[in-house]
Amino acid sequence: MKHTKVKDLLNSTTTLQEINAKGWVRTFRNNQFIALNDGSTINNIQCVVDFENTPDETLKRITTGAAVSVTGTLVESQGAGQKYEIQVKQLEILGDSDAEKFPMQPKKHSLEFLRENAHLRVRTNAFGAIMRVRSVLAHAVHTYFQEKGFVYVNTPIITGSDAEGAGEMFKVTALPFDNTPRTEEGKVDYKKDFFGKETNLTVSGQLEGETFAMALGQIYTFGPTFRAENSNTSRHLAEFWMIEPEVAFNDLEDNMDLAEDFIQFVIKYVMDKCPEDLKFLEGRLLEEEKSKPQAERSEMALLEKLNFVLENNFKRVSYTEAIDILRNSTPNKKKKFQYIINEWGADLQSEHERYLVEKHFKCPVILFDYPANIKAFYMRLNDNTEPGKETVRAMDILFPGIGEIVGGSQREERFDVLVEKMKALGIDEEELWWYLDTRRFGSAVHSGFGLGFERLVLFVTGMTNIRDVIPFPRTPGSAEF
Amino acid sequence: MKHTKVKDLLNSTTTLQEINAKGWVRTFRNNQFIALNDGSTINNIQCVVDFENTPDETLKRITTGAAVSVTGTLVESQGAGQKYEIQVKQLEILGDSDAEKFPMQPKKHSLEFLRENAHLRVRTNAFGAIMRVRSVLAHAVHTYFQEKGFVYVNTPIITGSDAEGAGEMFKVTALPFDNTPRTEEGKVDYKKDFFGKETNLTVSGQLEGETFAMALGQIYTFGPTFRAENSNTSRHLAEFWMIEPEVAFNDLEDNMDLAEDFIQFVIKYVMDKCPEDLKFLEGRLLEEEKSKPQAERSEMALLEKLNFVLENNFKRVSYTEAIDILRNSTPNKKKKFQYIINEWGADLQSEHERYLVEKHFKCPVILFDYPANIKAFYMRLNDNTEPGKETVRAMDILFPGIGEIVGGSQREERFDVLVEKMKALGIDEEELWWYLDTRRFGSAVHSGFGLGFERLVLFVTGMTNIRDVIPFPRTPGSAEF
Repeated sequence: MKHTKVKDLLNSTTTLQEINAKGWVRTFRNNQFIALNDGSTINNIQCVVDFENTPDETLKRITTGAAVSVTGTLVESQGAGQKYEIQVKQLEILGDSDAEKFPMQPKKHSLEFLRENAHLRVRTNAFGAIMRVRSVLAHAVHTYFQEKGFVYVNTPIITGSDAEGAGEMFKVTALPFDNTPRTEEGKVDYKKDFFGKETNLTVSGQLEGETFAMALGQIYTFGPTFRAENSNTSRHLAEFWMIEPEVAFNDLEDNMDLAEDFIQFVIKYVMDKCPEDLKFLEGRLLEEEKSKPQAERSEMALLEKLNFVLENNFKRVSYTEAIDILRNSTPNKKKKFQYIINEWGADLQSEHERYLVEKHFKCPVILFDYPANIKAFYMRLNDNTEPGKETVRAMDILFPGIGEIVGGSQREERFDVLVEKMKALGIDEEELWWYLDTRRFGSAVHSGFGLGFERLVLFVTGMTNIRDVIPFPRTPGSAEF
Repeated sequence: MKHTKVKDLLNSTTTLQEINAKGWVRTFRNNQFIALNDGSTINNIQCVVDFENTPDETLKRITTGAAVSVTGTLVESQGAGQKYEIQVKQLEILGDSDAEKFPMQPKKHSLEFLRENAHLRVRTNAFGAIMRVRSVLAHAVHTYFQEKGFVYVNTPIITGSDAEGAGEMFKVTALPFDNTPRTEEGKVDYKKDFFGKETNLTVSGQLEGETFAMALGQIYTFGPTFRAENSNTSRHLAEFWMIEPEVAFNDLEDNMDLAEDFIQFVIKYVMDKCPEDLKFLEGRLLEEEKSKPQAERSEMALLEKLNFVLENNFKRVSYTEAIDILRNSTPNKKKKFQYIINEWGADLQSEHERYLVEKHFKCPVILFDYPANIKAFYMRLNDNTEPGKETVRAMDILFPGIGEIVGGSQREERFDVLVEKMKALGIDEEELWWYLDTRRFGSAVHSGFGLGFERLVLFVTGMTNIRDVIPFPRTPGSAEF
């Protein structure tokens, strides 16, 4: 007999004869009521066991975590909290779960404990909800771009280029540490490595993505990216998923419009598709914040915050305006910032971004036109700036509670300007010959951005540590599973 | 003025005043007709330049590969082959393309030359079509699983486990080759590496995927996987994308049903969405095969072959039956096979798979119930087999022209049997403690498979070298771009 998913049983419009459900026992009360979950929904279905006619041996094996198969009738529930329940006629234990040993007991576990059990934490309500929301958000990303005719491009993970400049890279190699092949000069002989050259894990697919945008018009990537940086924070992972759209003929304004429309679309999509998971996560956050002082609690509940992003335009502010606001801000004057903003040209720290977003504007903010010398080589130099105050067509989108969620720019489309910039920064033109070809042959204005997928999941789920929104987090000192 | 995509112009239902199009010149004929392409479709739009009123200087710059912006009127075309064309009123050169230097001239290039210019080959008709088809196929994958309620899981790329056993692994490290930290015994001290242990690039997300299936019920992965194997063939890549669904409570029959339904869905999806690209690729294949002897040409044209897969069930054949067929086959008797099949237990080579699929059954074939000792440790041992003839619930799907496209199995759900198998093979139980937990706590029958995405793209596009269906191929000795 084919089993029916718990979600479909709970959404049934009638009672049903002879159904089978399979799943895992969340709790077993009064030797009678199984709360059964199969991962198809956050909701359990109540299974009422005929305990008088069930052997004690079997009843004892109905423990939290056990896999069971129940056959019976879907009837209207007498109890509160559910429309239907299963009147069990036949029960089979598929896989036992020793109550003494199963780590996911029906009680509150610390997030740290759950991280150490990342292979089992997804059996809890919270992590089931997070992983379903993450999945639906990923599909929202593809749906948005595909419906607009963007081409999904799988840029390479192993890269022979180390000029991307977005951060420290991991080495990928098939060479041994012992008796490493050496050149006559005693250097490591990467010609003998698998790819015949030194290779790393990608920090961004942007440069390769640009070559495709200059042929297909609108493209996006969505794949893993890596940073070998020793950042042990709640916002950084060594391995994370990034979304990078790139559009030919888009200028920076178009780029901002795209980013804003995209973020609003995917948030709306997940609110439509995952109302129960989000409601649960809203409750979880409220509960978590009860232990915090009033001042540190969120001003809005989760769904209210998501709606706020849908209903309000992101505030667009130039770097220069932002510096003025920060210079005149109370924390700057009272020297409460760790890094005091004195003059134009200063790089913004997380504390400044948070002030702008959370205290000053109280909404998502797009900062644009940053000083050229604090941004990457490929960003479009603005025309007509004062000497010493050159700016580039960069944009960062800042979100409350998250900080930077998007970084993007209009790209420098002028071959000569780009080469000059690379020379000034010591970036090897030979190595990026293929990138420069996009400017040699049929160059045009184009723009794109990168969005860290886990930061988006953080925002949508109301979680606060990025390790809790990816299945198996990779961080300094940790690559378990 | 906002530009309109070429695809939308060609699909217009009326003529239009004042439109703007942007794209790249494919050809320029008679100083008058630009074939303009912007990647939104394989079709170019013809732009008719008023050459009498256009300066010679500008006309000279309209070269293959140049980026241009044309403003004018969308009118019914007088010429054959297109419904509409643009009567150009204003033309702007956005980016020149030196006709002497641009590698993608409007002539036939070898596939090898195009691989060396992977950043530009996507500006050709064939590679534009391939990359659009690849993108739509990827979306078909997500759409299929999401509509069925599967949860997309991003299993880790960097793995601390080397027990997956699917192939040779690449090392991921932040340690230097010079002055590598060493333990007192002189071994490499991986405790000092980024993750505090030895790490590799994943060869499969299956084991992690199983832990999620045993909580969420139905899951799938779709991400990059790696093999550090020196296989310089037209069917192997060092970096490729794999799709791995895993379903709790599915047995091997359910697994076969899922794989077949899935493949038919995605092929139908791409046929519906990409008719023009596929028609072009069908023509390309016919053209390519003209140079081959009759016997080596495909029996069916591309679309016919795709329809054949949609309309016919895959033939399900046990390994034991397959061995009988092969043993009695003409090439085996005449010793035409490189590896002669003498007895039950032999591992099947590519030549045997091709014989079964292309000569004997002439349709996709699912082989199942393989000898236990030629398959992976996690596959479910069949009950009631003869001693010495133990089989496992494995399945491989073989496609004409491609060979193995899917490998899957029902998993060994019995803790004791699994541990015994691991011991026999010397696989460290300690290292896979988390995998074994799925069998310790609430184990159940479950099954899954892996599908190499590029092999699917090969089949659908009719290309014959796997390096031509991924944007930037990684193979032994090659990691350019």
